[in-house]
Amino acid sequence: MKYDIKDIKLAGIGGRRIGWADQRMKVLRMVRDEFRRKKPLKDLTISCCLHVTTETANLMITLKTGGAKPLLCASNPLSTQDDVAAALVKYHKIPVFAYRGENRRAYYQHINAVLREKPDILIDDGADLIATAHKNRIIVIGGTEETTTGVIRLRSLEQKRRLTFPVIAVNDSMTKHLFDNRYGTGQSTIDGILRATNILLSGLAFVVCGYGWCGRGIAMRARGMGAEVIVCEVDPIRALEARMDGFRVMSLDDAARIGDVFVTATGDVRVITRRHFLRMKDGVILANAGHFDVEIDKDALKRIASGPKRIRSECDEFRTRQGRRLYLLAEGRLVNLAAAEGHPAEVMDLSFANQALACQYLRENQSLSPRVYHLPWEIDQRIARLKLKTMGIKIDTLTREQKQYLSSWEIGT
Amino acid sequence: MKYDIKDIKLAGIGGRRIGWADQRMKVLRMVRDEFRRKKPLKDLTISCCLHVTTETANLMITLKTGGAKPLLCASNPLSTQDDVAAALVKYHKIPVFAYRGENRRAYYQHINAVLREKPDILIDDGADLIATAHKNRIIVIGGTEETTTGVIRLRSLEQKRRLTFPVIAVNDSMTKHLFDNRYGTGQSTIDGILRATNILLSGLAFVVCGYGWCGRGIAMRARGMGAEVIVCEVDPIRALEARMDGFRVMSLDDAARIGDVFVTATGDVRVITRRHFLRMKDGVILANAGHFDVEIDKDALKRIASGPKRIRSECDEFRTRQGRRLYLLAEGRLVNLAAAEGHPAEVMDLSFANQALACQYLRENQSLSPRVYHLPWEIDQRIARLKLKTMGIKIDTLTREQKQYLSSWEIGT
Amino acid sequence: MKYDIKDIKLAGIGGRRIGWADQRMKVLRMVRDEFRRKKPLKDLTISCCLHVTTETANLMITLKTGGAKPLLCASNPLSTQDDVAAALVKYHKIPVFAYRGENRRAYYQHINAVLREKPDILIDDGADLIATAHKNRIIVIGGTEETTTGVIRLRSLEQKRRLTFPVIAVNDSMTKHLFDNRYGTGQSTIDGILRATNILLSGLAFVVCGYGWCGRGIAMRARGMGAEVIVCEVDPIRALEARMDGFRVMSLDDAARIGDVFVTATGDVRVITRRHFLRMKDGVILANAGHFDVEIDKDALKRIASGPKRIRSECDEFRTRQGRRLYLLAEGRLVNLAAAEGHPAEVMDLSFANQALACQYLRENQSLSPRVYHLPWEIDQRIARLKLKTMGIKIDTLTREQKQYLSSWEIGT
Amino acid sequence: MKYDIKDIKLAGIGGRRIGWADQRMKVLRMVRDEFRRKKPLKDLTISCCLHVTTETANLMITLKTGGAKPLLCASNPLSTQDDVAAALVKYHKIPVFAYRGENRRAYYQHINAVLREKPDILIDDGADLIATAHKNRIIVIGGTEETTTGVIRLRSLEQKRRLTFPVIAVNDSMTKHLFDNRYGTGQSTIDGILRATNILLSGLAFVVCGYGWCGRGIAMRARGMGAEVIVCEVDPIRALEARMDGFRVMSLDDAARIGDVFVTATGDVRVITRRHFLRMKDGVILANAGHFDVEIDKDALKRIASGPKRIRSECDEFRTRQGRRLYLLAEGRLVNLAAAEGHPAEVMDLSFANQALACQYLRENQSLSPRVYHLPWEIDQRIARLKLKTMGIKIDTLTREQKQYLSSWEIGT
Repeated sequence: MKYDIKDIKLAGIGGRRIGWADQRMKVLRMVRDEFRRKKPLKDLTISCCLHVTTETANLMITLKTGGAKPLLCASNPLSTQDDVAAALVKYHKIPVFAYRGENRRAYYQHINAVLREKPDILIDDGADLIATAHKNRIIVIGGTEETTTGVIRLRSLEQKRRLTFPVIAVNDSMTKHLFDNRYGTGQSTIDGILRATNILLSGLAFVVCGYGWCGRGIAMRARGMGAEVIVCEVDPIRALEARMDGFRVMSLDDAARIGDVFVTATGDVRVITRRHFLRMKDGVILANAGHFDVEIDKDALKRIASGPKRIRSECDEFRTRQGRRLYLLAEGRLVNLAAAEGHPAEVMDLSFANQALACQYLRENQSLSPRVYHLPWEIDQRIARLKLKTMGIKIDTLTREQKQYLSSWEIGT
Repeated sequence: MKYDIKDIKLAGIGGRRIGWADQRMKVLRMVRDEFRRKKPLKDLTISCCLHVTTETANLMITLKTGGAKPLLCASNPLSTQDDVAAALVKYHKIPVFAYRGENRRAYYQHINAVLREKPDILIDDGADLIATAHKNRIIVIGGTEETTTGVIRLRSLEQKRRLTFPVIAVNDSMTKHLFDNRYGTGQSTIDGILRATNILLSGLAFVVCGYGWCGRGIAMRARGMGAEVIVCEVDPIRALEARMDGFRVMSLDDAARIGDVFVTATGDVRVITRRHFLRMKDGVILANAGHFDVEIDKDALKRIASGPKRIRSECDEFRTRQGRRLYLLAEGRLVNLAAAEGHPAEVMDLSFANQALACQYLRENQSLSPRVYHLPWEIDQRIARLKLKTMGIKIDTLTREQKQYLSSWEIGT
Repeated sequence: MKYDIKDIKLAGIGGRRIGWADQRMKVLRMVRDEFRRKKPLKDLTISCCLHVTTETANLMITLKTGGAKPLLCASNPLSTQDDVAAALVKYHKIPVFAYRGENRRAYYQHINAVLREKPDILIDDGADLIATAHKNRIIVIGGTEETTTGVIRLRSLEQKRRLTFPVIAVNDSMTKHLFDNRYGTGQSTIDGILRATNILLSGLAFVVCGYGWCGRGIAMRARGMGAEVIVCEVDPIRALEARMDGFRVMSLDDAARIGDVFVTATGDVRVITRRHFLRMKDGVILANAGHFDVEIDKDALKRIASGPKRIRSECDEFRTRQGRRLYLLAEGRLVNLAAAEGHPAEVMDLSFANQALACQYLRENQSLSPRVYHLPWEIDQRIARLKLKTMGIKIDTLTREQKQYLSSWEIGT
Repeated sequence: MKYDIKDIKLAGIGGRRIGWADQRMKVLRMVRDEFRRKKPLKDLTISCCLHVTTETANLMITLKTGGAKPLLCASNPLSTQDDVAAALVKYHKIPVFAYRGENRRAYYQHINAVLREKPDILIDDGADLIATAHKNRIIVIGGTEETTTGVIRLRSLEQKRRLTFPVIAVNDSMTKHLFDNRYGTGQSTIDGILRATNILLSGLAFVVCGYGWCGRGIAMRARGMGAEVIVCEVDPIRALEARMDGFRVMSLDDAARIGDVFVTATGDVRVITRRHFLRMKDGVILANAGHFDVEIDKDALKRIASGPKRIRSECDEFRTRQGRRLYLLAEGRLVNLAAAEGHPAEVMDLSFANQALACQYLRENQSLSPRVYHLPWEIDQRIARLKLKTMGIKIDTLTREQKQYLSSWEIGT
């Protein structure tokens, strides 16, 4: 078995941590139990490009339990947990091609390594795997995509009529983006910032760029920690919503002068750039929670300031000519994955149940044309229902009369 | 001019109150200014079935300013503000057929009165007007609908292929349901409960039935006032979301034993019924924020308890055989409109700008087939943009590079 | 029996409303039950200067049940509920001297009326009654004071060695100021503003002057309704606390340019004055939640603007020469009492249980020297314990070992 | 120079981290600047028993800058940051006696080491140092105490007339306990739990034992992260306050069945014990934020369950005979210090400015009798004022008229 990881000797600790996550991914475990009995993925090779975390490990194990042969590479050079990679290789015989801190070249070598194995299905996070497959004209039964960023890229591919196989936008499942992007990113972004800095959030001006599902989660949690939250947006409806939620809303040009912490979650490029850096106060902290490390313009930062000087783990100082210090966390990469451990297991439980069932769905529906799809509503509902059950929560059901009422138009005042 | 109102002498106070709302409906005022110049509704008869409030009055005036001949009847027997009706008749020569406390018969007579005038367009709130038009085979250019409840009814009509003219689901505009249903209903429901009871919300168990946009708003505001909020839902995804938002989630059977206040916002029938009443504590308060007075089963309440005995304005006591007292607010009708004044002007500003522009859209697009439509995305965006402007809020815009990035698929890690 | 009220015919509705409050004042009812058996206030004349509300009515009834002869006048010219006054006179034979809207002269005539009856105890709210007693050299067994403002005045009297009888600072009981001032004033101030204006609080800049217990409550609730809250303070510790609570903190000079709503709760004079008015935006709303109508400088307002023009009940427009409109609520008097109904019964339950027990304490401890006192800690604890019981809440108790541990110093790491 | 630390080679990283904290302790820096000029602590030996963190390092440096000779030992066996200890020794020549994970014997040896140097002043955190000094009959000019727990012990010593020198209860300064205990402990406890577990707090039942300043902070932040918070208390007033703040309040016996996470912050012993463990759900997490590791009854836990088995750093599994798993964090020691880095610098800035000025105060007031004292109100105010300045916040000041008004009693309605 080929693999490329940091150190196989880390497997012990990785294994224990995977077990911890497993306990907290109860829906995925139910899916796994079913997979064990039915083997719905029998003989499929599934190449995955995902953050190599304890939660992902449990997805890999689930796929294998379902009969598949999964391979894993990293979807971000800084997010790999080397102990997890080791445990997957050692205990589960799942080939992993990833180590924390790999450079761009190694990153793409690893993607190519998992593509080389003639995959039937691709599971992606950010669309680098699927994009590379397209560049290399590799055709598969189908793919799945985990992130907002990746879905945007894939829809652009679809719109340009360049998509060559069907893709399930797992991100668009309600049980994915409503939860993982909001509660997951919200909490883990705060977690990453605290681990990297140990600053007090109470009483700070905390600027969130982007009020999509991730941005909403971050804003909500930053407020929950006592910060004054300022939202920057380009979409007027979202901007208005942020204001009605009680946040201050302003242009980033204005926020740049006020903020103590800046977090980007836009999925776009060069959001915080030269002219913003120049207006910032001494001591500000810059972090990114979007998929790629393009939201904070690192090149511009390097041009106007000396540095980076490493102050703490994942916290680098840049010093402008005027002597102001700007602190960039996790080199502008996903702060929640690089400085903390990424989304907690409880929320990845939902996302990865979607992923596992999306693979099954692709196998069972092999005549799909090359487009971007949602998972069917019933699967979404079923996942939510299972999750509630694992949480011990009972909800109501509509009576026959209530169902009928909802589909009538005659009954009024 | 025919009309049917309570007392024309109330016009003075109504006029001042309409002026107060007008000051706070700045987007609608911008639309009105444009309407004044362009007269886009010239010679259209527009029959409206809406809550007769100061905000609605400003919509009526805007329609008239745009060249239309509007007529108004009430969309709820308890929500009419008689001073507003008087002011519309006296100062604006707009025929109104509505008085607070009208019975079911008068309610439908009034609907028929506005339908008799050969309307070109129907503006509806709850779909009673459009449903009646369908029953009477009246055909118009098109209609618009304000509420979730009404849209559900109209989609059912559409699905049964019984819809005979196009209808704009104004409720489905982002600048409508994201704001009016959430921030508007949220605040005004709390307001109605306080005016009717003057109870302290801090430290109470506050049960919200339904976690749609309205329910979310009510839950958010009840928590904001210090209550412990319990959510009851039938949809597992929404139930899960409520839990992740930190609320307790349980079946209404369980909540019935715990709650101090119960509010329904489901759009469905018989949500709180006999078996729930029987489990409730002494002194509980029951209120409805859904469109029709069918969510709390008043008939069942009357069967198991003596009453109603009026304790305070819009607060009636029912006493069970066991001596427990249940308090029903506003006779189970929309508590925010019957016990308070309905949504504040600032939020109706958005909703009614949508309504006014929907009328213009219907006139300009007369070849629409008989279906339920959204207002175009551009109108939605424009309304949000105008609102931000009136609030003095500046937001960012995408650079050319950023737009391009969002539509590319090649650029990855 | 002498009395001076608006209209005895309002007694019916007043009686029902008093009954409603009674149901929600369960601790006071327990005190009343004990008073009925023990008659601890037998033959005492108790002159009270309090807001004439349904909650106060229940205190009066409790005092009478305890054997006392209570008399009541108003502690604010705009807070009297005339139906309550009528019910107290008609059904309970308690002399009341108060009507809503009485002028300053009538206000003091009423104070003198209750002082003329040779009171043994004075219950006061704002210290006008006790101050007048001092001016007129009336000596009593003791007095009690309900408010922060009143306690400040009485401590000043004490410090100047002018106090002639003991006074219990009921306000300083934990079960009073931690609850009534915060949760009571917080909610009822929002309530008063909504009834007077029906504005949407979401998305507004809401300025709170003073971050004492009342200000904290108002800030907390305004945020809970979706406003952006700005706090102005003179005490650096409180200012820092407000900031750490996530609010913006700035000087009122700066806030004046930004705020949409301004609420004063400082207990001091001329807080918002000429230079602030001149900076304010068009359409701002001014309200006071402090005891006296001196916090918003009404004279200055009248000098720089024409008005008042009544727009809605308890909402007056002032128009500056530049055409900007400022809206003053409740003529600058306590907005929660003048525009809404004052604190809810549930919280006055605590405050008035303190008042009733303070009277008993004064009778049982007649040798107190003329100073300002706290109610004993045990009474405070007992009231909290009773309240929890009425709410169905069970709490833990310290074990013997735990008590011992807390009083040891030897046991360390 | 004698010292006892883990590894002097860690000094480099410790030094950088101390510098990072220094940047964020701006008030302490102002005090240090003054100390540099005035040398108010000249020739004093100050023995300190504090958590060896980057913030404490800056206090040590400040004392030294003021002319003192400080020595440092640890106030908790698990809270020492070994790199900080190394940097203090290497770069600042300050003797440190502490390493992470020292046993009880080493812990007391270290305390004795700093006592042996004939200290003039003792700075303590938890009162182990001062208690040991008393046992050994060591007399000093005075001591200071940082924590609620320590102050309780010292007051008990005072009450038993055993206190032999004056002690400043730094904890009781407003700028200490209102901030450090609430915002500091609140955030850092959440931080510690996340680092030790990476669980999702959204949607969990989070039980807080004790609603003092620390408990309030933890409850506030847990809610802010989306948890449902349950408070357990023994004091009825605090219990009532928790309920009015919207939390559920119940006995720990009841909470034990419901909770997903339990945090103790009571300062008392055996709060969570055998009978609670036996009722708990599978997978619960137990953490302590109180000073000593006595709040969670570890002995009882070991008797009813096998373990500990280390699952993740600072997270140990205990398995009951019924197969339920309980996870104890940081061996029941202060979770914020053992699993995270303790309070952020911004809030220790306030606490340690108090400590530094308390030392100066003790020197300047050497005739104090042996009692427990507050720092004078003026020092408290000054610290707050400096902090606001460093945060760029301007506040109002009372006018002469306003001051006069507050001290008058004549001016009423």
